[in-house]
Amino acid sequence: MREGRAAAPDSYARAGVNVAAGNEAVSRYREVLGKWRHREQIDGIGGFAGLFRLPGDKRRALVASTDGVGTKVLIAAELRRYGQIGADLVDHCVNDILVSNASPLFFLDYLAVGKLDPSVAAEIVAGCAGACREHDCALLGGETAEMPGIYQPGHFDLAGTIVGVVSIEALPKPESVAPGDAIIGLPAVGLHTNGYALARSLIPPHEWSAPFGNGTFADALLTEHPSYYHAVRAIQAVARVKAMAHITGGGLFENVPRTLPENVKAVFEQQRWSVPPIIEELARRGGLGAERYRIFNMGIGYTLVVPIADAAAALRAAAGAKVVGWIETRDADEPRVIVHPARGE
Amino acid sequence: MREGRAAAPDSYARAGVNVAAGNEAVSRYREVLGKWRHREQIDGIGGFAGLFRLPGDKRRALVASTDGVGTKVLIAAELRRYGQIGADLVDHCVNDILVSNASPLFFLDYLAVGKLDPSVAAEIVAGCAGACREHDCALLGGETAEMPGIYQPGHFDLAGTIVGVVSIEALPKPESVAPGDAIIGLPAVGLHTNGYALARSLIPPHEWSAPFGNGTFADALLTEHPSYYHAVRAIQAVARVKAMAHITGGGLFENVPRTLPENVKAVFEQQRWSVPPIIEELARRGGLGAERYRIFNMGIGYTLVVPIADAAAALRAAAGAKVVGWIETRDADEPRVIVHPARGE
Repeated sequence: MREGRAAAPDSYARAGVNVAAGNEAVSRYREVLGKWRHREQIDGIGGFAGLFRLPGDKRRALVASTDGVGTKVLIAAELRRYGQIGADLVDHCVNDILVSNASPLFFLDYLAVGKLDPSVAAEIVAGCAGACREHDCALLGGETAEMPGIYQPGHFDLAGTIVGVVSIEALPKPESVAPGDAIIGLPAVGLHTNGYALARSLIPPHEWSAPFGNGTFADALLTEHPSYYHAVRAIQAVARVKAMAHITGGGLFENVPRTLPENVKAVFEQQRWSVPPIIEELARRGGLGAERYRIFNMGIGYTLVVPIADAAAALRAAAGAKVVGWIETRDADEPRVIVHPARGE
Repeated sequence: MREGRAAAPDSYARAGVNVAAGNEAVSRYREVLGKWRHREQIDGIGGFAGLFRLPGDKRRALVASTDGVGTKVLIAAELRRYGQIGADLVDHCVNDILVSNASPLFFLDYLAVGKLDPSVAAEIVAGCAGACREHDCALLGGETAEMPGIYQPGHFDLAGTIVGVVSIEALPKPESVAPGDAIIGLPAVGLHTNGYALARSLIPPHEWSAPFGNGTFADALLTEHPSYYHAVRAIQAVARVKAMAHITGGGLFENVPRTLPENVKAVFEQQRWSVPPIIEELARRGGLGAERYRIFNMGIGYTLVVPIADAAAALRAAAGAKVVGWIETRDADEPRVIVHPARGE
């Protein structure tokens, strides 16, 4: 229900993000939160968001999630490119509640700065506003905090909270996932909002303006975090969707199992999709083995589990959608996610 | 609708908080947000929170607010006192939506750290959880972000979002405020969550362990931000409350007018209440004149406007409540808030 952003292995620790501490914090939060639970709270789907019964309507629930964009803010700040980061945040939050099948109602941002530059702040908030509008989501409020001593003058942090609504009968039913179901992957276009601590250590600032692909490393590093809202709704119109996952920190290995029952495993076939060149570059520079599937999204931003009979219709409904793997029976001692071929392992 | 924390005068600028930039940012946000407004959004009361019609129920609204605790986090971090700061944040948010008469439903926190210490994180979140429980408010989720490079190792930032609900007919009606009404003040016990940038410049860290009052400067600086929820509900049970204000950044001068009509002014009589000693000390050290009423709460944490006939009952209902001033007719060229006597001016 509560996620620490720190959730990846050794290479990540080298970049200053401590996975063991993240897991320990999550465990301590469970103790703290286990002491009391509100009677209107409903079990969430895989912990991507919290659910709370809609006041006066037992058939619907409010779905809420808070998130940030991680140290992507450092690259945006260094390059003074502020237009996209607000949209990245909104899109990330939209995807998190979409896993529970919720539609956005409203969003609020928190922007904290070392020294307030009104035009920069307005550019960031305008990015939030634009992405909100694309989801028919009100930008209901926000806070801008100038905090000298916490943030360096050009630095900032950006977080946000989204609230959506879902019919309880429309909540995904992970228990219906069965061996033979197909896993549809929606394409990732870059790092989205995860893996930046490691990315900055592997591609230092002096390289950011160097050419890479059709642009520069900066362009590749700051590529947007897309919303999968419209693609998912298009797929749901033609296919039965049993479970979904937003591939954020922890990658395929940690996010996909969050919405699957224990008796199945997700088997991905890497040759079925392509990995964004910036992620290939980072994996190469870092000499990353299997852990690259925990640190990065590896080219899949969002997954949907559908009956195999519905897969073809699903693919036609959303540009770039691919069958990236299958659900198989899992024995108790097997991993919950397997990626073939296990290159680099 | 959207507040910059930066909202105070010259002394504040000396402490690194730029008021002009804050006002400029708010003005630019208005431009950005003015371009599109969601059809379910409702005008808020004085901008302490955003209002959104409850799905399926036109008679009620969701009320949401995001806030932080400002640079109070720096003092908490330096002194390694983490137990209170989470409760400070929840209480602050509860008070913000209480101005719209809303009751809390759920809260989500955002905790960002330079280096994740699970026991510290758990202590902070436990503070949030305790204050949530006191308000029958679910702690529905949160995000813990480890962000090396943004935050120094021992530093952190803490923000949160609260969502509550209110009957639209129970929204305060500021337009009903009339000359002769009494202003009830609920006592502040310290700085709450405002004025810390200046406070840290006037009382440097080496003095924090020195005796002050019944404890130390540290004790006085970290005194809790109280919730006024239960006091306000007790007053509302016996008195007609026309308008309320949460006295945060900007103090009496900037917060009280936010929920008053243009044709009245709020006239406070300083001798009717006492100023917390830590605020007196800061005003003295800083040689602050009238601006102390913009930087600090000056001993009033929350105000309620009631008909004079209801004032006595209101005072009996809440410990520490005092009549601190009156509503008077205002000419167009008069200030919207006056404090007598204007000591230090």
